[in-house]
Amino acid sequence: MTQIRKVEVTEVGPRDGFQNEKNPISTEVKVALINRLIDAGIPRIEATSFVSPKAVPQMADAAEVIKGIDRSKGTIISALVPNARGAIRAAESGVDEMVLFVSASESHNKKNVNRTTEESLQGFEEVARIAQDAKIQLHGAIATAFGCPFEGDVPVERLAMISKRFQEMGFVGMTFGDTTGMATPKNVRAGVRAVRAAAPKLAMNLHFHNTRGVGLACVMAGLDEGVDKYESSFGGIGGCPFAPKATGNICTEDLVYLLQEMDIETGVDLAKLTAIACDVETVIGRPLPGQIMKAGHRLELHDMNAVRTAEG
Amino acid sequence: MTQIRKVEVTEVGPRDGFQNEKNPISTEVKVALINRLIDAGIPRIEATSFVSPKAVPQMADAAEVIKGIDRSKGTIISALVPNARGAIRAAESGVDEMVLFVSASESHNKKNVNRTTEESLQGFEEVARIAQDAKIQLHGAIATAFGCPFEGDVPVERLAMISKRFQEMGFVGMTFGDTTGMATPKNVRAGVRAVRAAAPKLAMNLHFHNTRGVGLACVMAGLDEGVDKYESSFGGIGGCPFAPKATGNICTEDLVYLLQEMDIETGVDLAKLTAIACDVETVIGRPLPGQIMKAGHRLELHDMNAVRTAEG
Repeated sequence: MTQIRKVEVTEVGPRDGFQNEKNPISTEVKVALINRLIDAGIPRIEATSFVSPKAVPQMADAAEVIKGIDRSKGTIISALVPNARGAIRAAESGVDEMVLFVSASESHNKKNVNRTTEESLQGFEEVARIAQDAKIQLHGAIATAFGCPFEGDVPVERLAMISKRFQEMGFVGMTFGDTTGMATPKNVRAGVRAVRAAAPKLAMNLHFHNTRGVGLACVMAGLDEGVDKYESSFGGIGGCPFAPKATGNICTEDLVYLLQEMDIETGVDLAKLTAIACDVETVIGRPLPGQIMKAGHRLELHDMNAVRTAEG
Repeated sequence: MTQIRKVEVTEVGPRDGFQNEKNPISTEVKVALINRLIDAGIPRIEATSFVSPKAVPQMADAAEVIKGIDRSKGTIISALVPNARGAIRAAESGVDEMVLFVSASESHNKKNVNRTTEESLQGFEEVARIAQDAKIQLHGAIATAFGCPFEGDVPVERLAMISKRFQEMGFVGMTFGDTTGMATPKNVRAGVRAVRAAAPKLAMNLHFHNTRGVGLACVMAGLDEGVDKYESSFGGIGGCPFAPKATGNICTEDLVYLLQEMDIETGVDLAKLTAIACDVETVIGRPLPGQIMKAGHRLELHDMNAVRTAEG
């Protein structure tokens, strides 16, 4: 077993979670939640997306959100950037990092951005020039990295090819995006090994969805492979367009709890994080799938005389 | 990493799940579900509990449930037995195995059965005699094995002491019961090692609750320690008296999906199992926490033209 002692947790809720919310969330609320995440010790936050406001109205305030964020603690503030226009806006806003997405599967990339993956990768070069001129670091994300809802299994050669291109374009890191919850311990191991061989300079992030209940089991496999960066969302907010009742991203509090209980340092205050998740639930107005926010920490003890128990 | 190739999954839903349901479930419905579990290939089922019908009215039909079960496939039919009176009823009903519960923590045992753990263990000797006369195998279960809601962490010496007593009384196996979801990969490893040293002849089962989201992560730790027997409930039915909104047992379909995707043989038909879980949800009348029953298998592909996607 690889002995990971420290993990970087990236909170993606403000982007990957909020992006799919139909009811508008105010800029003030977003900024306040992000600043509380920073105060709780989260070291990297995917704060927003510089997509077209027409395509995703919820992200129209991207620049204002970035402007409101407390930068005093050195938290890495990243934002999703789909094209050169978004990159210019992101650079002006002063983000620390631009995240560029491409799908491992052709059909998902076509569906998502109406381009071939090669066209997406070529488009990244223009974005990369804008970022590099502004001295902003670049991070690549591979959607459908562990399976495509249209094609099924994704060959690891695709992950290797794309991550190699990321490295050649000077990206500092990459994320395996488990877009629709198709990751398993087995394909996580295979993907990590393939990318490590193809692009050894890239920092690796694993971004799992708990759509099929095995998100944290995949984290265990990732830790065993020596991966020390994971992405998750507060309360487990986010969903899956293919399974309306299923859950989305793995939950940040549950992930941090798991890591802490394995003596892995995260630098995160779990109690503060849990309070934030409860407030996100109030903002969203429906129950979130996070468990620690419902059950509390395992060592929050109970009064023997206050509860009826049952065998089992 | 220990390479487990085959796992025995025990379905505990008919006992650990149904036991806490207030609305009566008919004997016919219970029997039909258990027989479908057998048809789906589940090799061991905790079918019912021979507790006092006054204490747990839902289990009053224990003998009738056992009578209706299809025994042609050799599925191990076990039942919970709290005392000699229950053991006599269980023996008459013809179960394959009696399961005896004791809590690792004194305060939980006191709360649960109003005895010290030593009194519980001494009481098991009478039950053991009844079982042995009837040639029925015995299985011990340690509740609060990974933590007590009143006392917190449970010393592994308690697990070692109790399992040693199980072995001395001729039990064939034992279960670590994670009664309120306090298991973590770390205390699972410690508990398994302690019991293996103290009672090497006992077959070991791990029974996790997903109360804090880490149930399947604990399975990963158990597999890594070489444990090849796990208990779970259909749809993840069951709860936690200390956290009304939290989930209970790990979900059988999600567990079987995880194992199958790791190339670990279970002998279980996942599609049949998922159909059963959906029907349990209908019987119970409220959503269950299982994920595979909502999202389907990862390789159930979708039509590119039928769904709107979103980046991430």
